[in-house]
Amino acid sequence: MEQRILRTECSDKTGLIAGIAQLCFKYNYNIHHQDQFVSSEDNTFFMRSVLDGDFDKADDFMQEIKAFLPADAKASLKENKKANIAVLVTKESHCLGDILMKSYSGALDANVVMVAGNYNKLEDLANKFNVPFHLVSHEGISRDEQEQRMMEVIDSYDVDYIVLAKYMRILSPKMVAHYPLGKLINIHHSFLPAFIGARPYEQAFNRGVKIIGATAHFVTNNLDEGPIITQDVISVNHRYSAENMAKAGRDVERLVLLKALNKVFDHKVFIHGNKTIVF
Amino acid sequence: MEQRILRTECSDKTGLIAGIAQLCFKYNYNIHHQDQFVSSEDNTFFMRSVLDGDFDKADDFMQEIKAFLPADAKASLKENKKANIAVLVTKESHCLGDILMKSYSGALDANVVMVAGNYNKLEDLANKFNVPFHLVSHEGISRDEQEQRMMEVIDSYDVDYIVLAKYMRILSPKMVAHYPLGKLINIHHSFLPAFIGARPYEQAFNRGVKIIGATAHFVTNNLDEGPIITQDVISVNHRYSAENMAKAGRDVERLVLLKALNKVFDHKVFIHGNKTIVF
Amino acid sequence: MEQRILRTECSDKTGLIAGIAQLCFKYNYNIHHQDQFVSSEDNTFFMRSVLDGDFDKADDFMQEIKAFLPADAKASLKENKKANIAVLVTKESHCLGDILMKSYSGALDANVVMVAGNYNKLEDLANKFNVPFHLVSHEGISRDEQEQRMMEVIDSYDVDYIVLAKYMRILSPKMVAHYPLGKLINIHHSFLPAFIGARPYEQAFNRGVKIIGATAHFVTNNLDEGPIITQDVISVNHRYSAENMAKAGRDVERLVLLKALNKVFDHKVFIHGNKTIVF
Amino acid sequence: MEQRILRTECSDKTGLIAGIAQLCFKYNYNIHHQDQFVSSEDNTFFMRSVLDGDFDKADDFMQEIKAFLPADAKASLKENKKANIAVLVTKESHCLGDILMKSYSGALDANVVMVAGNYNKLEDLANKFNVPFHLVSHEGISRDEQEQRMMEVIDSYDVDYIVLAKYMRILSPKMVAHYPLGKLINIHHSFLPAFIGARPYEQAFNRGVKIIGATAHFVTNNLDEGPIITQDVISVNHRYSAENMAKAGRDVERLVLLKALNKVFDHKVFIHGNKTIVF
Repeated sequence: MEQRILRTECSDKTGLIAGIAQLCFKYNYNIHHQDQFVSSEDNTFFMRSVLDGDFDKADDFMQEIKAFLPADAKASLKENKKANIAVLVTKESHCLGDILMKSYSGALDANVVMVAGNYNKLEDLANKFNVPFHLVSHEGISRDEQEQRMMEVIDSYDVDYIVLAKYMRILSPKMVAHYPLGKLINIHHSFLPAFIGARPYEQAFNRGVKIIGATAHFVTNNLDEGPIITQDVISVNHRYSAENMAKAGRDVERLVLLKALNKVFDHKVFIHGNKTIVF
Repeated sequence: MEQRILRTECSDKTGLIAGIAQLCFKYNYNIHHQDQFVSSEDNTFFMRSVLDGDFDKADDFMQEIKAFLPADAKASLKENKKANIAVLVTKESHCLGDILMKSYSGALDANVVMVAGNYNKLEDLANKFNVPFHLVSHEGISRDEQEQRMMEVIDSYDVDYIVLAKYMRILSPKMVAHYPLGKLINIHHSFLPAFIGARPYEQAFNRGVKIIGATAHFVTNNLDEGPIITQDVISVNHRYSAENMAKAGRDVERLVLLKALNKVFDHKVFIHGNKTIVF
Repeated sequence: MEQRILRTECSDKTGLIAGIAQLCFKYNYNIHHQDQFVSSEDNTFFMRSVLDGDFDKADDFMQEIKAFLPADAKASLKENKKANIAVLVTKESHCLGDILMKSYSGALDANVVMVAGNYNKLEDLANKFNVPFHLVSHEGISRDEQEQRMMEVIDSYDVDYIVLAKYMRILSPKMVAHYPLGKLINIHHSFLPAFIGARPYEQAFNRGVKIIGATAHFVTNNLDEGPIITQDVISVNHRYSAENMAKAGRDVERLVLLKALNKVFDHKVFIHGNKTIVF
Repeated sequence: MEQRILRTECSDKTGLIAGIAQLCFKYNYNIHHQDQFVSSEDNTFFMRSVLDGDFDKADDFMQEIKAFLPADAKASLKENKKANIAVLVTKESHCLGDILMKSYSGALDANVVMVAGNYNKLEDLANKFNVPFHLVSHEGISRDEQEQRMMEVIDSYDVDYIVLAKYMRILSPKMVAHYPLGKLINIHHSFLPAFIGARPYEQAFNRGVKIIGATAHFVTNNLDEGPIITQDVISVNHRYSAENMAKAGRDVERLVLLKALNKVFDHKVFIHGNKTIVF
């Protein structure tokens, strides 16, 4: 007995759940667990079904599923295996460190196949975990040129997701468009939509806020505006300098990013316009 | 178009979701939202389905549902209406106050039909909200006698749930058995299973804990051991006296209780042995 | 033995704590507890000292304190008594309800001396707790005129603080300037600085955020920009409609506001530029 | 200018703060920040003062401080430097991993001078960070013998603290007594006092709790009963298996332990009977 995940996404109509359940029954797939949601704005149906069974005839099953679903449907059947990921970094180690450590201990369902950075400060850390590191410096070359090189490095690997783990460069529309929506995941050093832009902890300090946060989101062309996956916050107070806030913020950043990655790698996240459904 | 909630609970078998969905389809009930869970210990299936439709033939539908389900099944179709509740109190006002206020403002889907207490300290508060108050004193009479009178008072009303809102008397097995499991809801002044018994905040203070909590649970014969519905905590520190801890605890107690009541009144809670499934 | 609170605020210099402590010692005031902070930006010293003693010669003590402190110092000695407050409302009851209930039960160190609103919807609620309600409608009159009447109503009472408990009108600079900074406290229906302006929960819904919050702050002429006292958040998800977010938000709003009021009434909050120190 | 931390602990009396402040003034040490607490049970005074100055005459200063304080006083002046720590482990990597990573990145003020375990599973991880690992197996030898060897290994290093980072062996009273109280820090895989003993996550699962937590505490002879430093919790629900609870618990464990270590290494923790004061 194997376990696979059926993801369904289409315009809603009566009988969708019944029809899908009937097809699972026909192929002798037991629905171990199922999450479902219909958006109230535009009546879009989302479902994630965990199926137990023998998937020899999975192709036939998916053909029947697609024939049954409305024309606008997206449906996929995901195998239960580790994601292959590329991690992009600059100088800060806290997110990469947590990804490497959790991948090493088995607490993150992912293989880090490579790390690339515009500085080589984290090469040593990647190498500790036997992960190849690529320096793609931005110095002395155009932004376009640097991005071109970065994409070549990434594309020389077969990766499911690209994680921007405090990669402090703004991706051009060209690079964003080069990858399908949902493949690029970013951790934003702030509780969006507050403190967009540079030096968020200094902004937070100057505003005298009592809470700071972080946001993990998919990358789109609208900087800092992609679909939010997870967010979390911690309390701060007047004793925190901007630097202390940044230090505290790092802990939130890595927790929020790792939580998002776990959800994404588990196929629990659907993108819906500029929002997400996270089961 | 009306909305009703179908609750299903039975031993799991392949095709349950498909079969129920088919019947909903047959009666033209659209499944607006559905939550489902199978316990791993004993393979019990739980499902809460929010149905939109015309429920003129609801009785026929439920007959077909029951015919389809295994013999051990419990199934019910709940109308979308306010719960009628009795609230039992002693002297502390914070839980009763929140129940009355939220019922008054419409933030709790319940009518408080009466309040009863073994002291009359909260009579004034109940009356402010035009709710009858019954004094059922324990003074000068046996525990058995007091309970008997309390049950008579309660049973003179038609209530869906009895909320022990800091009612500081231990119910006898006789009184517990007098009501079906799930009807009596208690707020326990502690994070169960820690600090069971009397003076929990003094216990917490003496132990020097950094977090205190509260637990809402259904009442069973095992004192403080009934199925837990909701729990929450707050941070405390060395500056808190036992009294300060109690004061802080009161805020957690009312929040935890009200959250539990909202879930129960919304038919989102299933009891499974000594645990709950809360959708 | 009485307890009073000494608040000190001035430019920092070596020996401040020693000097103040010496004067307390001289007057036989025991320092029961003391919190102190020096801002790193401009070296301002803030201290809150809880003193036990016999305060017959409190005036002499304060004269000596002021003589000792730098010329720019603010110092005050607060008696331990309940604050008198006016509460301004519009239609939403959750914040006023919590203030009245906690004042009634003794969990808030304040007497609500009056409630005033631009609608009379909450008159009934105020009256339940025997608090006078004043309708100061904005209908048919100018904004200026309505404000003028509101200030007259407020000023006919002797109040320590004015709490804007979901008072959905923007105060003019004139009205803000009419009261000393620190007297007007507002609860903002959002996690500042995010979602400033109208319909914050719809904004939050449209942005697809996973967390919503609330902010209690002192009122200044910069709308939504006054010094923040407390903030808190709760998690939401894709299942929350804008309306559900508003409902969840109300619980955060009342908790954040009540927490802020407790801190302010306990003389634990200092205003420093556009920030606060909260001991 | 240097920064040092003065820790004072003694029976309370009027004039303590004044006297200490006077001595700081005399030696030209500016009190940059000061936290102070008097326990209500037994009137013990605790103070942590951050002093800026030139500490050439620190010995004279401490002599005067001790002469001024009551006979039962403990006072110390801590230099601002990294703690040297030994970490004891068994098989689980999450706490050691976080300690190594944060020490590596500078987010923890400590040098990990060695790791010792009763299994060698984490030798590879320690070596990645160039930290020596000592296997002190318990196999084939008595508990007493194993402990003896462990103490010899530890004592061959000069360490300020010994961190039990999921070291799954119960220390004998002999080993506990071998080190001063405050030197041994443990992370307990549960929210104390709940679920003391073996397999806490299975206990939590069986009880159906909605929250699980972790506790960092100093080690005393009363197993799981030492003074609590920090605690935290996370929410769980019916979907969590005992194994999922353990996985979620690991994240809480490492966060709680690291938070405790930061507080201890910063000299912010005082032990008072079986409790702690944490500034």
